[in-house]
Amino acid sequence: MGDEAREHCGLFGVYNHPDAVRLTYLGLFSLQHRGEESAGIVASDGRTMTRHVGMGMVHEVFTPENLSALTGSLAIGHTRYSTTGSSRVQNAQPLQVDFSRGSVAIAHNGNLINALLLRDELEAHGSIFQTTIDSEVVLHLLADPRYGRFEAGLVDTLTQLKGAFSLLILREDALIGVRDPNGFRPLCIGRIGEGWVLASESCALDLIGAQFVREVEPGEVVIIDRSGLRSIKPFPKTPLSHCIFEHVYFARPDSVVFGESVHQVRRSLGRMLAREHPVEADVVIAIPDSGNSAALGYSQESGIPLDIGITRNHYVGRTFIQPRQRARDFQVRVKFNPVRSVLAGKRVVVVDDSIVRGTTCRARLKSIREAGAKEIHMRVSCPPIRHPCFYGIDFPTRKELIANTHSLEEIRSYLEVDSLGYLSIEGLLKAVNGRGGDYCTACYSGKYPLDFGSEADKYILERKFAGEAHPPGTPPPDYSKPAKLRT
Amino acid sequence: MGDEAREHCGLFGVYNHPDAVRLTYLGLFSLQHRGEESAGIVASDGRTMTRHVGMGMVHEVFTPENLSALTGSLAIGHTRYSTTGSSRVQNAQPLQVDFSRGSVAIAHNGNLINALLLRDELEAHGSIFQTTIDSEVVLHLLADPRYGRFEAGLVDTLTQLKGAFSLLILREDALIGVRDPNGFRPLCIGRIGEGWVLASESCALDLIGAQFVREVEPGEVVIIDRSGLRSIKPFPKTPLSHCIFEHVYFARPDSVVFGESVHQVRRSLGRMLAREHPVEADVVIAIPDSGNSAALGYSQESGIPLDIGITRNHYVGRTFIQPRQRARDFQVRVKFNPVRSVLAGKRVVVVDDSIVRGTTCRARLKSIREAGAKEIHMRVSCPPIRHPCFYGIDFPTRKELIANTHSLEEIRSYLEVDSLGYLSIEGLLKAVNGRGGDYCTACYSGKYPLDFGSEADKYILERKFAGEAHPPGTPPPDYSKPAKLRT
Amino acid sequence: MGDEAREHCGLFGVYNHPDAVRLTYLGLFSLQHRGEESAGIVASDGRTMTRHVGMGMVHEVFTPENLSALTGSLAIGHTRYSTTGSSRVQNAQPLQVDFSRGSVAIAHNGNLINALLLRDELEAHGSIFQTTIDSEVVLHLLADPRYGRFEAGLVDTLTQLKGAFSLLILREDALIGVRDPNGFRPLCIGRIGEGWVLASESCALDLIGAQFVREVEPGEVVIIDRSGLRSIKPFPKTPLSHCIFEHVYFARPDSVVFGESVHQVRRSLGRMLAREHPVEADVVIAIPDSGNSAALGYSQESGIPLDIGITRNHYVGRTFIQPRQRARDFQVRVKFNPVRSVLAGKRVVVVDDSIVRGTTCRARLKSIREAGAKEIHMRVSCPPIRHPCFYGIDFPTRKELIANTHSLEEIRSYLEVDSLGYLSIEGLLKAVNGRGGDYCTACYSGKYPLDFGSEADKYILERKFAGEAHPPGTPPPDYSKPAKLRT
Amino acid sequence: MGDEAREHCGLFGVYNHPDAVRLTYLGLFSLQHRGEESAGIVASDGRTMTRHVGMGMVHEVFTPENLSALTGSLAIGHTRYSTTGSSRVQNAQPLQVDFSRGSVAIAHNGNLINALLLRDELEAHGSIFQTTIDSEVVLHLLADPRYGRFEAGLVDTLTQLKGAFSLLILREDALIGVRDPNGFRPLCIGRIGEGWVLASESCALDLIGAQFVREVEPGEVVIIDRSGLRSIKPFPKTPLSHCIFEHVYFARPDSVVFGESVHQVRRSLGRMLAREHPVEADVVIAIPDSGNSAALGYSQESGIPLDIGITRNHYVGRTFIQPRQRARDFQVRVKFNPVRSVLAGKRVVVVDDSIVRGTTCRARLKSIREAGAKEIHMRVSCPPIRHPCFYGIDFPTRKELIANTHSLEEIRSYLEVDSLGYLSIEGLLKAVNGRGGDYCTACYSGKYPLDFGSEADKYILERKFAGEAHPPGTPPPDYSKPAKLRT
Repeated sequence: MGDEAREHCGLFGVYNHPDAVRLTYLGLFSLQHRGEESAGIVASDGRTMTRHVGMGMVHEVFTPENLSALTGSLAIGHTRYSTTGSSRVQNAQPLQVDFSRGSVAIAHNGNLINALLLRDELEAHGSIFQTTIDSEVVLHLLADPRYGRFEAGLVDTLTQLKGAFSLLILREDALIGVRDPNGFRPLCIGRIGEGWVLASESCALDLIGAQFVREVEPGEVVIIDRSGLRSIKPFPKTPLSHCIFEHVYFARPDSVVFGESVHQVRRSLGRMLAREHPVEADVVIAIPDSGNSAALGYSQESGIPLDIGITRNHYVGRTFIQPRQRARDFQVRVKFNPVRSVLAGKRVVVVDDSIVRGTTCRARLKSIREAGAKEIHMRVSCPPIRHPCFYGIDFPTRKELIANTHSLEEIRSYLEVDSLGYLSIEGLLKAVNGRGGDYCTACYSGKYPLDFGSEADKYILERKFAGEAHPPGTPPPDYSKPAKLRT
Repeated sequence: MGDEAREHCGLFGVYNHPDAVRLTYLGLFSLQHRGEESAGIVASDGRTMTRHVGMGMVHEVFTPENLSALTGSLAIGHTRYSTTGSSRVQNAQPLQVDFSRGSVAIAHNGNLINALLLRDELEAHGSIFQTTIDSEVVLHLLADPRYGRFEAGLVDTLTQLKGAFSLLILREDALIGVRDPNGFRPLCIGRIGEGWVLASESCALDLIGAQFVREVEPGEVVIIDRSGLRSIKPFPKTPLSHCIFEHVYFARPDSVVFGESVHQVRRSLGRMLAREHPVEADVVIAIPDSGNSAALGYSQESGIPLDIGITRNHYVGRTFIQPRQRARDFQVRVKFNPVRSVLAGKRVVVVDDSIVRGTTCRARLKSIREAGAKEIHMRVSCPPIRHPCFYGIDFPTRKELIANTHSLEEIRSYLEVDSLGYLSIEGLLKAVNGRGGDYCTACYSGKYPLDFGSEADKYILERKFAGEAHPPGTPPPDYSKPAKLRT
Repeated sequence: MGDEAREHCGLFGVYNHPDAVRLTYLGLFSLQHRGEESAGIVASDGRTMTRHVGMGMVHEVFTPENLSALTGSLAIGHTRYSTTGSSRVQNAQPLQVDFSRGSVAIAHNGNLINALLLRDELEAHGSIFQTTIDSEVVLHLLADPRYGRFEAGLVDTLTQLKGAFSLLILREDALIGVRDPNGFRPLCIGRIGEGWVLASESCALDLIGAQFVREVEPGEVVIIDRSGLRSIKPFPKTPLSHCIFEHVYFARPDSVVFGESVHQVRRSLGRMLAREHPVEADVVIAIPDSGNSAALGYSQESGIPLDIGITRNHYVGRTFIQPRQRARDFQVRVKFNPVRSVLAGKRVVVVDDSIVRGTTCRARLKSIREAGAKEIHMRVSCPPIRHPCFYGIDFPTRKELIANTHSLEEIRSYLEVDSLGYLSIEGLLKAVNGRGGDYCTACYSGKYPLDFGSEADKYILERKFAGEAHPPGTPPPDYSKPAKLRT
Repeated sequence: MGDEAREHCGLFGVYNHPDAVRLTYLGLFSLQHRGEESAGIVASDGRTMTRHVGMGMVHEVFTPENLSALTGSLAIGHTRYSTTGSSRVQNAQPLQVDFSRGSVAIAHNGNLINALLLRDELEAHGSIFQTTIDSEVVLHLLADPRYGRFEAGLVDTLTQLKGAFSLLILREDALIGVRDPNGFRPLCIGRIGEGWVLASESCALDLIGAQFVREVEPGEVVIIDRSGLRSIKPFPKTPLSHCIFEHVYFARPDSVVFGESVHQVRRSLGRMLAREHPVEADVVIAIPDSGNSAALGYSQESGIPLDIGITRNHYVGRTFIQPRQRARDFQVRVKFNPVRSVLAGKRVVVVDDSIVRGTTCRARLKSIREAGAKEIHMRVSCPPIRHPCFYGIDFPTRKELIANTHSLEEIRSYLEVDSLGYLSIEGLLKAVNGRGGDYCTACYSGKYPLDFGSEADKYILERKFAGEAHPPGTPPPDYSKPAKLRT
């Protein structure tokens, strides 16, 4: 899949470390792959919070100056990707507000499927909204003055939420981590010295030298404060539905998520793929780096030697000036260059992790063909993506998903390859150590694990996603007048 | 006074002009002197609002790119100065929010003396606050769902406000201008083509070629929409208390405010000053440009010839690198250089508009003495500033006001001048065409025109201002827990 | 004239001061009006030179970082304006090179009329040129290996130069100041502690607190090194021809140049103007700030009261975004706003220092008329500018000089004023204390003080200036193939 | 070796293409790995040259604006790395000058060992130098007026040069490519449409879709002008000495240099390494990406399975803010993270291309050990680097080369590995298809292929390199007074 899909959000929080802000900065840095659009940190010195957020990547948003202005031994941070429409700095997380009982900040990974409903209700009671993101709803709920203690309001608030949510909540003197009962998105716990760390992926713990303790459990609320870490489980028991796409593409291969090494799962996917779609060939190559692990597995299972058929240019940044002609293909070329001596005259198995729109894949395969490959056998280490994700993965709209609108043979023909093999859903689930039942595969199967409750819900949801799919540069969807749309 | 005090806010709004955003940008540009800290614009295309705000001056905050992203024929803009503590981009105006009946944006010039009280009440009912500025309170009040029509809520909201407020309120399809019943801050109405303009000062109309229509009256609410401009007056009748300091220092000399030409008022102040504090001298010079108009009046009344004794370097910007030694005096020198041939051996009358801390004034007078002046007679075209302003002027704290802590003779001695004359309050009020009773002179007299209602009010107010006076770089005051302080 | 013409260059050098680099930075800052296009400093620590130059104004080119990288107690600096064609960083001064006897840096104010001839000769002997500026020729001459001691080469080099040149030359351990024998451009000497300063104008000495010693004399070479300051006069005696335009427009009013206070000379110009062109009127106003001194003189001589009829917006920077329509006039409006109450119904004398193209002047007068002036009498404190300057002032080409192509009546009509009066050449020269014979008035009279030697010279010179007048954005003139043009 | 050594220069030129400037920009982009310090382009439209150079990477130096200002269908570009001392924009290439016969620009990859000698001679004849780079010497030689035709001067100039030089020379209407007779550095020829391309590596041709034609031969001068491409060979026959380090580390794996695929050579190096240093182990891993090809070869030859034991973070940029403690190791961690599940409890063969200082390698190995590796066997696909390179590779000084100062056992102990194996020189040369005799191995063997002529030469050379090794931030070496040093 390479760069076609983009990830949603990364979370990182620290409790009780003198260098909490800088550790959070580093943690975000290693979660950069989960969101390049905006980044932010809120810190607390026990009494007062300071905040800095901005558009761009972590190293763009933060400078030594603005990092120094964030003080305290507690901090939470967020990296974010979102569709263009709401790409504005107001929407950068963590959000931080003042309310009757003090200050609170929040960072969210996932998607609330009842956010619009909750928002409408809150607005009907006089709430005003300064952003268009789900998390602001959570803050309004938490601030309800009827709750005496914060914790009471917390439980009540969380049980109103529906959807995918890994959350970090910062109080002046406490750090709270939440994972929804389905366990859609990952969140893990680490220790560093006397302090605690919460992170979306374990690779962020590695970077700062923190020890991995365990994952936050699905449905668990972890409260870390002066009295240490304690855990509450306010949600009713729910079947698990981990996002399989974290293993397929999102998470970094050096992370452990949902209890397994991402690299090892991906290698298993490659092995399954070799069993399901064997072929006579001379060489197996990966689309670097997204296909690396699966290509290794395919080669090991099939016995066809692995080679480096494409190199990747690491200098590619965002500010690249294009030549006058040849738009799209060029972006591929500047990033990937085939190694002619590996490909010329060969029957080549090309392994990648997924295909979304198909355009980028096609361009890469074209350059492999131009480098002299005699046969190309495309192998994809997940099933065809046919359905939108309502739980936090930013796929393009249905119409843009090539597997939603084209048959396998049409895709093969479009990619101009000699054969095409996708891993089956069964194969996919086998690769995760037989715990297949714990995973959400809605983007492949269309079976959404979460009860939508009523048709209204789903309608609102689709409206929300439709709204997001407006063209770049246009104003964000106007969520403020939902009544008219709902009739 | 030169640069010691800094102005609060400038407002500019356009209704129904195809180039509304760019006109607003230009309007803000000509109101830059009212606030250099942050700037912002919210535009509406009739259905949707777009917003851009940022820290810095107008030409720094806006680029051709971000201006183009603001679309519509309605817009309001804001330039802002504030004390350091709350210098953060969250506090930049206009604020814009979504609520149950749509979107609304607001820009505020002035200061609400009951903002903290209102905020506490709102928080007690569950409101959450993302900024520390007064105007957010207004938005929460406007959003109260009990109001059926927006206009009903508007009147109800405005009558809850206490203090100085010129406001611009933007709806999707309407522009509203408000001036508090005391008329503390200016606001005027202009026409350009088929469109309407609202601006803090008339100089902003001149720049864009708009025709001056009239000022918004004290206590008037001007609603501009499809049906044209209509006016409501929801406030009880109140004695006027225009801010005299707008004439003394704030407003641009080419503006008309409170019905009079600022330049002409300042020249009259100079004439009054010559009558109250005559002196034998060879030459009258101004501290440029703040003392220009008054020096002209002094020279005309006294018959002592005017000359250019100090030149001003227009290149001075904010990024100037200082030499290793000689901090404060140097800043004066780089900006103002005496003309030795005008001063050497002369008895010099030096005219400026005001003295706040006295340090800058002293440094300038020192350089005049070093250029050879035989005698220096300092003349100030307003009375000694002895009291804080609670209505929107950002004076330093009481202790820093030289006239609060020193006698006139002590000030004269500190400035090292042969004589020192301040204009009297009576002289000041005479200069405004005999309408002296309509002006607030609290910073000179300590007589605050607005009823504080209870001691509690004033206590909260002083707390608020005390809070603002924290040292640069420290976190903003924590307004979220007022209960503890009030006991 | 306001902003139409732009000045050429400012020079500043320091010998033997621990803070030499920072003083030079400050000196350049106060000479910013002599050139906004590029700036640069070369420093020497006695053995090694370090250099930083860049495009832009002094505060843009220098940062605390790059200033710190310049080390030593000797430094020279340069600010520069030039026509667009050669606006490239390669041409930023000071130039610095290595040659057989060490390093040398140079900064130049003026224009060599035989630069192309010398360049052709040098290229014919194998020299290569990396810039298109005159000063590189000087460096090549200085480097001639036939000179045993640097000083011998210096005298020989300088006597080959023809034209206007105030020069600063930096060696590892010496600072040299040169003024051409005609004394076209100013250069003065100051002392600060144990150190020496050389500067284009005395205002730069004021800023850093240096004492004015004297001007470098026309034809004098001042060598400052370990043994102190010594002076040689290698040039044959020549009649003086100071640039009168330094007094009329270029120099800062707080400077002393050619032995006289610039402000006082300008006031005398205003007095002369009142005598030559009296008029019945109600008020005298200046175009700020260029006409301030002359307007004061006009008012004093005529008895017509001075007033402030136009205010200037000090915030105008370079990055201003224009509205969609109304290009040129707008630039005037954003910078200058008339004060209606001063002008309405009045007969107004408007005083400015000069008129170049006439377009800006016309726009300003138009806004004065629109503010209600009943009559406008334009008074210009110098004669009509009809001829190009070959000695360092960057006037536009002949065709663009309004007084070259239009009669006085045509100009009056173009400006739409009731009367127009220029100061006469005789009046101009009287204002400089009867030393009129010492001044160059070529831009008014067409009488060029410097012998061109042969028609060839003048031809080359005009070619050079023609070359400079190419449109912005086009490549610089190709000086590399002069042979073809000379036939 | 990863990032320890940094490459010198990349060259790219285009003759006769309407989009020459943009193609050159792209070409430089794909040669970014050969130099990240500065970049530049000179273009010619047949008559006039335009130039833009700057410090930084290609995408930092060029903007759409400055690219558009470069016009013409001929262009040459350069990317550069150099030691800190001469990191100044004056030294950015291509250089461009005017001389008696027009303009000429030059871009250089390599190092002239007699540059200082030539410079001294030229200065003695009056030449002045504005940079401290070798190529300026070439320009002075080319400009010698005794040469009637440019081509005559070209041949004469080139035969005076001693050392490593691949050159691009641009005239108004011609593009010239030169490779020194030893063939130290690569240079190849491509075609695109009607145009010609010259590039350091073939990967740059791939990016722009140009066809690879052939390499410029060692000692060949290729002149491309209106009459097409012609070739002259002005140098006496010399044994070849291609830089083996281009294959080991410098060149991109997808390039063909010196007639062979870089990836394939590197894989062969890995195979040779497996034969020379076999070991019992469970897994082979590469230091990504520098060790990828060799690790593949090692695995294939040894039969030990390859796995992905380290992942690389592609987001690492230059502006990364470090945590307060743990400097060096941290830089490694942020870029590379071990995959615990691959390494824990395993006997691991780690393959990298080279070891320079050893510090980075040590840190990486440490993190592999911490991830649980039971045994670590370090394998390096080239011999120990013990000697400086005088032909254009920027190794650190002798003292910093770990293999120069430590025995193999000491290195093994420092790296804390169970075994350490370097490839032998013989193995190295075998991997390049038996053409070992054509390669320079001086950095391994100390046998410098180029006759230094006299001890003086070498002395000067070492002085030059010693000079370059001064600490960052200090002034560049003073080349201007060589006489004193030479005594």
